[in-house]
Amino acid sequence: MDPKMMIEQGIPFAGRTEVKVLVMEPGYVKMMMPLQPNLNHVGTMYAGALFTLAELPGGAIFLTTFDASRFYPLVKGMDIKFLKPAATDVTVEIRLAPDVAAKIQETANEIGKADYEWECELKDTNGQIVCVSSNRYQLRSIKPPG
Amino acid sequence: MDPKMMIEQGIPFAGRTEVKVLVMEPGYVKMMMPLQPNLNHVGTMYAGALFTLAELPGGAIFLTTFDASRFYPLVKGMDIKFLKPAATDVTVEIRLAPDVAAKIQETANEIGKADYEWECELKDTNGQIVCVSSNRYQLRSIKPPG
Repeated sequence: MDPKMMIEQGIPFAGRTEVKVLVMEPGYVKMMMPLQPNLNHVGTMYAGALFTLAELPGGAIFLTTFDASRFYPLVKGMDIKFLKPAATDVTVEIRLAPDVAAKIQETANEIGKADYEWECELKDTNGQIVCVSSNRYQLRSIKPPG
Repeated sequence: MDPKMMIEQGIPFAGRTEVKVLVMEPGYVKMMMPLQPNLNHVGTMYAGALFTLAELPGGAIFLTTFDASRFYPLVKGMDIKFLKPAATDVTVEIRLAPDVAAKIQETANEIGKADYEWECELKDTNGQIVCVSSNRYQLRSIKPPG
């Protein structure tokens, strides 16, 4: 399966949101959550769809930036703040510098796992930040060290 | 619409997860997220479904416990920790004591809004805690004070 399709459709839950991968490159991912299929009862985007948009880049960055034949990622936790109601489609961009990614892989290779994290901002089409999230991940080695 | 149905189906995003309200009473809600429609790519429950199960009781407790003709709730944020993969259906129970709820409404009535929060545990069918979440809500008065 094409990597964009894996993120958009690989998890049926994500597929049902109709989330889109706009850009997916080593160290950089941009995704969009459409408003219409994810409306809540007051006509803005449901919190669960915002959470999903904040979470999915973890998988997308993993696929483009880490060696999927040697490692797999876990989401350990997310601290998400809802700042404003989102009344449009919403986008998120994640960057992970190559040297930071290399260091994470090196640690996971040496001791079997490596924690990493990032902050992200979710923006509406007017550029308003509707939501911020701190995401904590762990990269695990498929083969234990030693 | 029946209040259980409002929580299960009122938000299409939630309806698509097939989440169920098992008990919905003043001050107490129990809900269940089924595994099957919410599987991730490795055969456990996707993080977004766990988040949704942790979040929806906020609306359910609101409907049974607060005066919906005078107030509405906002979710301000959630700090969610994924402790173990969930390989079964998952449940959550929320309790909000009547005196605590009364105090929240009193404050919202006086100054237009009142913050409240709770911790919740998500458990698999073996009773294992798979996820914990701290949820921050705000009750807002429909009529501004004064």
